[in-house]
Amino acid sequence: MSIVIVGSVAFDTIETPQERVERAIGGSATYSSMIASLFCPVKLVGVVGEDFRAEHRAVLEAKGIDLEGLETVEGGKTFFWEGRYGADPNERDTLVTELNVFETFKPVLPESWRGSGFLFLGNIDPDLQIDVLDQMKEGTVSGCDTMNFWIEGKPESLRRLLSKVDILFVNDGEARQISGESNLLHAGKAILEMGPSVVVIKKGEHGAMLMTGDMKFITPAFPLESVMDPTGAGDTFAGGFMACLAAAGKVDSESLKRAMVYGTVSASFTCEQFSVERLKNLSSDDIKKRFNELMAMVRVDDEAQD
Amino acid sequence: MSIVIVGSVAFDTIETPQERVERAIGGSATYSSMIASLFCPVKLVGVVGEDFRAEHRAVLEAKGIDLEGLETVEGGKTFFWEGRYGADPNERDTLVTELNVFETFKPVLPESWRGSGFLFLGNIDPDLQIDVLDQMKEGTVSGCDTMNFWIEGKPESLRRLLSKVDILFVNDGEARQISGESNLLHAGKAILEMGPSVVVIKKGEHGAMLMTGDMKFITPAFPLESVMDPTGAGDTFAGGFMACLAAAGKVDSESLKRAMVYGTVSASFTCEQFSVERLKNLSSDDIKKRFNELMAMVRVDDEAQD
Repeated sequence: MSIVIVGSVAFDTIETPQERVERAIGGSATYSSMIASLFCPVKLVGVVGEDFRAEHRAVLEAKGIDLEGLETVEGGKTFFWEGRYGADPNERDTLVTELNVFETFKPVLPESWRGSGFLFLGNIDPDLQIDVLDQMKEGTVSGCDTMNFWIEGKPESLRRLLSKVDILFVNDGEARQISGESNLLHAGKAILEMGPSVVVIKKGEHGAMLMTGDMKFITPAFPLESVMDPTGAGDTFAGGFMACLAAAGKVDSESLKRAMVYGTVSASFTCEQFSVERLKNLSSDDIKKRFNELMAMVRVDDEAQD
Repeated sequence: MSIVIVGSVAFDTIETPQERVERAIGGSATYSSMIASLFCPVKLVGVVGEDFRAEHRAVLEAKGIDLEGLETVEGGKTFFWEGRYGADPNERDTLVTELNVFETFKPVLPESWRGSGFLFLGNIDPDLQIDVLDQMKEGTVSGCDTMNFWIEGKPESLRRLLSKVDILFVNDGEARQISGESNLLHAGKAILEMGPSVVVIKKGEHGAMLMTGDMKFITPAFPLESVMDPTGAGDTFAGGFMACLAAAGKVDSESLKRAMVYGTVSASFTCEQFSVERLKNLSSDDIKKRFNELMAMVRVDDEAQD
């Protein structure tokens, strides 16, 4: 099956203690589509300004991503974000957020995309996420991301979204914020009661935990010798996860477990270079190789029965 | 095989946001011996004062722990520690440390214990750890714990210990402090170069990572619905780990992996109740059951080769 991915397409200026990169390609839909393209056909819904030129589109086209749903606003400027990381790559300050063309974005899905089967809603206004979800055909498997800005600013829209979506991706802080529970198992349970049948709680370098009504699954992060730029790691995780499900064409325990591991290794690649650089030349084989490496680091061959 | 365990036997006063427990049984050798006793015969080396009465010894004796090496100093007082946990159970303040009989402790191993095969050196003065290690027969498999107090206060003794010991247990902060490396893979490599053939880096609720010259293994923590008291979790981890190796009677990749998972689930039990309460009635079957539960949370049945 194929996947429709909605979210931001952006320019990011990123500063780490080592380096600064100006106006690199970024945005939730960019990261998640680029990784998803290694698993299944991808259809991107988003908006850019005139400053998003052919050379920028080419980065997405090179991955075979269908851009029919990427609207260009004449005379408009592309969404811009600037952030700075400290010595701890888990902590960052947002210095600038310019919504630009995103401010009036009203996503409309091409008719032929509505039966794609799988949908990933990157971190945008939950009202827009609901709007897109409602455009998809009945039976679509949907996943969404969100952030503290919407949890605080649009709690009712977010609750409405959660009552409709199948899979929620959040980090540990967001899970605690949404649920009001500090223990992550309690937080996950509380979120499942709000609607999603699957919740994925991401913990950055400490891995991720998936919960359904009758299953828990935990993946440690893939250990990296150096983290250059964690921007987009969460989007890549979710993109790899959802596209792995779309490729399998089903959502059962085993495909969810595989999606967790593929999401995890997907995110690890993104951190290795600035912006989407590492994703540009990444292959399916690179991902499969790292999947097996990570599994070898957690698997015990003979179990407890002595 | 059997294991000799050296460390503190203590009284702990522990305060959490929920509760306060006064002068409960604690100490590194207590926690690690009690869990180890579920895997193999345990011989405890330590020192207590007259205030450590028959009822306290009975807690250890009930586990079948050999106390021939537990010296009682007439007129002396047992090591005392008081600590307070905040809302985040990973952070604690030490309020009181009274070494008491520990100040002049000079461990002497019963002659018949020196060929036990396995040795765990709980967190005590590295000079004492070396002294005990030197009393064991050639070919003993040894593991040790340490802490920031010794890393800062006795760096040369610690380096000497590391050149002799086989397995080092540290938490992530200690690994960074010993190695001067912030990345944990680099920290682990640097520590391996100092002597140990195995380093285990513990990350509390985020699990643990093991490194040897040619293997990495990662275990997430066993997810708990509530953490009542994390005191002794690290000691229980190391005790379960080392005793699992002693029970296997060998140190190869597979036994190290199993030891990581057993250490992890051992630690999880300790956190469920105050002091050693949960360990008192814990059975081998409880541990095996949780081993299998944790493995089910990380294992993917069909791997990446589609």
